[in-house]
Amino acid sequence: MWRYIKRVLIGKPLKTLDEGQTHLTKFKALAMLSSDAISSVAYGPEQITTVLVTLSAMAMWYSIPIAAIVLVLLLAITLSYQQIIHAYPSGGGAYVVATRNWGSNGGLIAGGSLLVDYMLTVAVSTTSGTEAITSAIPVLYPYSVPIAVIIVLLIMIMNLRGMSESANFLTIPVYFFVVMIFVMIAWGAYDIMSGHVHYQAPADYGSPVAGMTFVLFIRAFSAGSSSLTGVEAVSNAVPNFNKPKAKNAATTLAIMSGILAFFFIAIIFFGFYLGIVPNSKTTVLSQIGAAIFGGHGIGFYLLQLSTAMILTVAANTGFSAFPILSFNMAKDKYMPHAFMDRGDRLGYSNGIISLAIGAIILILIFHGKTNMLIPLYAVGVFVPFTLSQSGMIIHWFRERDGWWIGKAIINLVGAVISLCLVLALFWQHFGNVWPYLIIMPALMLMFHAIHRHYIKVAKQLRVAEKTKVQLHDYDGATVIVLVGNVTRVTRGAINYARSVGDYVIAMHVSFDENPGKEHKTANEFKAEFPDVRFVDIHSSYRSIAKPTLRFVDVIAKRAAARNYSTTVLVPQFIPKHPWQLALHNQTSVRLRTVLNSRQNIVVASYNYHLHE
Amino acid sequence: MWRYIKRVLIGKPLKTLDEGQTHLTKFKALAMLSSDAISSVAYGPEQITTVLVTLSAMAMWYSIPIAAIVLVLLLAITLSYQQIIHAYPSGGGAYVVATRNWGSNGGLIAGGSLLVDYMLTVAVSTTSGTEAITSAIPVLYPYSVPIAVIIVLLIMIMNLRGMSESANFLTIPVYFFVVMIFVMIAWGAYDIMSGHVHYQAPADYGSPVAGMTFVLFIRAFSAGSSSLTGVEAVSNAVPNFNKPKAKNAATTLAIMSGILAFFFIAIIFFGFYLGIVPNSKTTVLSQIGAAIFGGHGIGFYLLQLSTAMILTVAANTGFSAFPILSFNMAKDKYMPHAFMDRGDRLGYSNGIISLAIGAIILILIFHGKTNMLIPLYAVGVFVPFTLSQSGMIIHWFRERDGWWIGKAIINLVGAVISLCLVLALFWQHFGNVWPYLIIMPALMLMFHAIHRHYIKVAKQLRVAEKTKVQLHDYDGATVIVLVGNVTRVTRGAINYARSVGDYVIAMHVSFDENPGKEHKTANEFKAEFPDVRFVDIHSSYRSIAKPTLRFVDVIAKRAAARNYSTTVLVPQFIPKHPWQLALHNQTSVRLRTVLNSRQNIVVASYNYHLHE
Repeated sequence: MWRYIKRVLIGKPLKTLDEGQTHLTKFKALAMLSSDAISSVAYGPEQITTVLVTLSAMAMWYSIPIAAIVLVLLLAITLSYQQIIHAYPSGGGAYVVATRNWGSNGGLIAGGSLLVDYMLTVAVSTTSGTEAITSAIPVLYPYSVPIAVIIVLLIMIMNLRGMSESANFLTIPVYFFVVMIFVMIAWGAYDIMSGHVHYQAPADYGSPVAGMTFVLFIRAFSAGSSSLTGVEAVSNAVPNFNKPKAKNAATTLAIMSGILAFFFIAIIFFGFYLGIVPNSKTTVLSQIGAAIFGGHGIGFYLLQLSTAMILTVAANTGFSAFPILSFNMAKDKYMPHAFMDRGDRLGYSNGIISLAIGAIILILIFHGKTNMLIPLYAVGVFVPFTLSQSGMIIHWFRERDGWWIGKAIINLVGAVISLCLVLALFWQHFGNVWPYLIIMPALMLMFHAIHRHYIKVAKQLRVAEKTKVQLHDYDGATVIVLVGNVTRVTRGAINYARSVGDYVIAMHVSFDENPGKEHKTANEFKAEFPDVRFVDIHSSYRSIAKPTLRFVDVIAKRAAARNYSTTVLVPQFIPKHPWQLALHNQTSVRLRTVLNSRQNIVVASYNYHLHE
Repeated sequence: MWRYIKRVLIGKPLKTLDEGQTHLTKFKALAMLSSDAISSVAYGPEQITTVLVTLSAMAMWYSIPIAAIVLVLLLAITLSYQQIIHAYPSGGGAYVVATRNWGSNGGLIAGGSLLVDYMLTVAVSTTSGTEAITSAIPVLYPYSVPIAVIIVLLIMIMNLRGMSESANFLTIPVYFFVVMIFVMIAWGAYDIMSGHVHYQAPADYGSPVAGMTFVLFIRAFSAGSSSLTGVEAVSNAVPNFNKPKAKNAATTLAIMSGILAFFFIAIIFFGFYLGIVPNSKTTVLSQIGAAIFGGHGIGFYLLQLSTAMILTVAANTGFSAFPILSFNMAKDKYMPHAFMDRGDRLGYSNGIISLAIGAIILILIFHGKTNMLIPLYAVGVFVPFTLSQSGMIIHWFRERDGWWIGKAIINLVGAVISLCLVLALFWQHFGNVWPYLIIMPALMLMFHAIHRHYIKVAKQLRVAEKTKVQLHDYDGATVIVLVGNVTRVTRGAINYARSVGDYVIAMHVSFDENPGKEHKTANEFKAEFPDVRFVDIHSSYRSIAKPTLRFVDVIAKRAAARNYSTTVLVPQFIPKHPWQLALHNQTSVRLRTVLNSRQNIVVASYNYHLHE
């Protein structure tokens, strides 16, 4: 039943050698990896103007120089990440680059930031997408949290099916949004040139604004930098591209950044030209759309729909990046090995499922109001940016061939701007950013604890190479059969025990409550198996585990003295349907758990299957 | 660590023979079992007047005849339950009585209704108590759901500690409330007699009211019947009383009903005399308190506090009744046997924990607004009342000695009134009561499925008594050792396998991904154990389970042909700290689960314990 549901949702298992088939073309990769970056034009420009308008509408023209600096930063980051893609074609992005050049702690800070960030991406994008849906269909508003959770689960299932198939599905919303924004820009440009739309800016570019300070400028700039989140996704996913992987990935990154830059500056320009002032009810993008298409035109509604769709799809970026990053960290023994397991469809199932759970928890905690997470999200992006780009400077210095100084300068510009942004975010948005200072140390401790554990285990398990130890030869085997009551299960278990053991002993625990029953079991057993030694242990408490363990320890000690191995056989019956397991006392499970605490005892289960 | 926390919260384990110590005196039993019934005066009278006031304030005098009928019903139920206590001193209340006299289906309807009802009791009482707390301390209002959940958990822990200790704790709030209501009544009576308080009823008793109909009368009466919920708690808990159990229980029930009746009629009377009209902001009880004590007097605040406390404690009634009822139903094989397990402190832990979980789920679903559950709750009480009291008529008819006709008439009156109430609730409150028609059939199906399963299992496990089957003698034992890689764990497992097996074979599954590694493992193994046969299985998928199962089946078939038993040995290492288990692939757990599907194979675990 469960297997059938899984097959329908996830698809049939793929062979490991089928792997090539799940790789991405540039066209699909752009849809798959750029939705996070491109969709940020739906909220990034607004973040800038929202800060500026706190001073006055006159200050709005400052959005243009701020946007110019954001574009310089975008250019630096794009060039820098293209260099990273070529230098580290096996993927891993900031984590790999920082590890190689800054050492493991640098890598872990970058990696830990990104792991948390991908959860934030999924949570923030999904809830923003849901908000867009619920503003279009207000009836759904009370159900926004369940809608967001269902969307996360749907994206999770798509990713468990495998990347390539998901991307097919996801190209539509991304290209729909890209087309809608292009149409809007072209239409708007025509309107302006044909004089249909008039210049309505509250103040001309460059006009003096009373009260404008450097602090406010930095505050607006750092808020606007959230538009640059998601750019790193391409560099993490290089191994998923068609060959030549590095070249295709670099091209995809360039196309994506070009689209993002054009959209970003166009939206800032229209916002300024049309004199649009942000308010809490309608987004800047939708105000521009309303001004260009008309507030009730089909164009306006299509724009809103495409915005909702790409925001929902942006959540998918996290699902392609998180599993690969956690795989890389698990390979380096900083995350549990389970993140290296591939599922039936070759995706890293545990990474995909963990990400979904993390995002759903964030959605539930914030009850679908995740916007206040955006500055934290930006810090989580720019810390790895800083580490990877400064790491690249070290990389070029180590290699020192060709145009290395030019390349290093590109990375230096990116690193300096990223670092300034991190400082600006901590300075101007501390109220939203402080959890970073708690989460990161906790993650670092966890990564190191995991790492130490794996190293220790490997050391303890290693077979000594030089000194070849002789195998140990036991003289025989003692088998203890636990007996609850005398049934067909007991009979099968005793038969088996006699096949493996040289000395077989049956043990029963009886209680105060039914003083008649203890003799009943003993008598039944002796009648059935007159040749097998039967020991009856009495317990004043209702625990079977403690007296069993005490008895088994005694027998094991005696067995060891005779150079016998010790086996405890737990007979149990397996009901026909799994749900029926809940109807039987889980005594055998508890006993096995307790007995597993003993080094010198092997625990075996004799299973009697019921057929009705 | 966990064991230490458990010891602090639950207390040290008690011996089974210590049982007598957890029995209840009448004084404690009254506190323990009556809080549900007595606390219902905080909302029962209000339910009546709330219906009447929908017509007009003139209709309020009808509350007095309605209250009189409720008291007749209370009297009938009390006498009837006293008869039940004497007739069935081993407890079980409505479930036992209905089963004995109406057959198993009657019993299951009664039992199922009560199981659901106890969850409703806990949820409704806890949230009402929380509302009383938050109306006193408005700052806490946003946290009402977590507060209610914490209260449920605290009551759960008290009950896991054992009944007698809990009761010590619970006597205070119950007697505090009883004292406060007595003081209020005495004070009010003095005020009326001394003329401090004047007659303010909107219409005299018996004055004609336009629009008063029989339907409205029934609606008000059925709503008021919710005051009678909780009366059955005493009859379920007879085995918990000090000896003579039946007599003490019957006396406790009489005292409880007397207090309830007095409080109920007094509150109805004051409400009428003082002309109090229910409104949504302040309860009728608190309005009466304010009129008698003065709205800002210490007496008023003490009354509010005691109301809040007894409502919280009322939740505890469910915790004493639910585990005993589920024990009785499990004994009859209609509920999972796990409900018969006693915990360290002799309480039926699984019943206590299930009840807490059910109540917490109800609180979370209804977000602390559980008042609309009250009519459903009343149906769940009066269906078992009807069944048990009509069952008692059958009981007396079967015995036919002494005053049996008189006793049967008492039960007949109770049964008829209860049945009318059920019909009235379905007729007048269907919107809140319909879930009963879905829940009960589902529960009945579940009870019968569980019962059928237990009967079938017992039949299949029974050792045939007449035909004595010869024990089977195997000629030897085949042991298959699963090898992941060659470590100290492998070495220990091979040593053990050779002690129990006559034929030992090692098996390894290799994958496509690392073509070098398969030979590596094989070579390492052959160097270490040259005498043991090693088989390398190749898998194109990433599943270890399927190829292992296929191989093991082949070997088991061959072993059976030679009359050998088959054992699969799964080597595993146990890390030092339990949390570290999460860091290792749970391959061995998965393999054991899959191998348990085979009847003819015994699965054994070789445990290698790590010490660092």
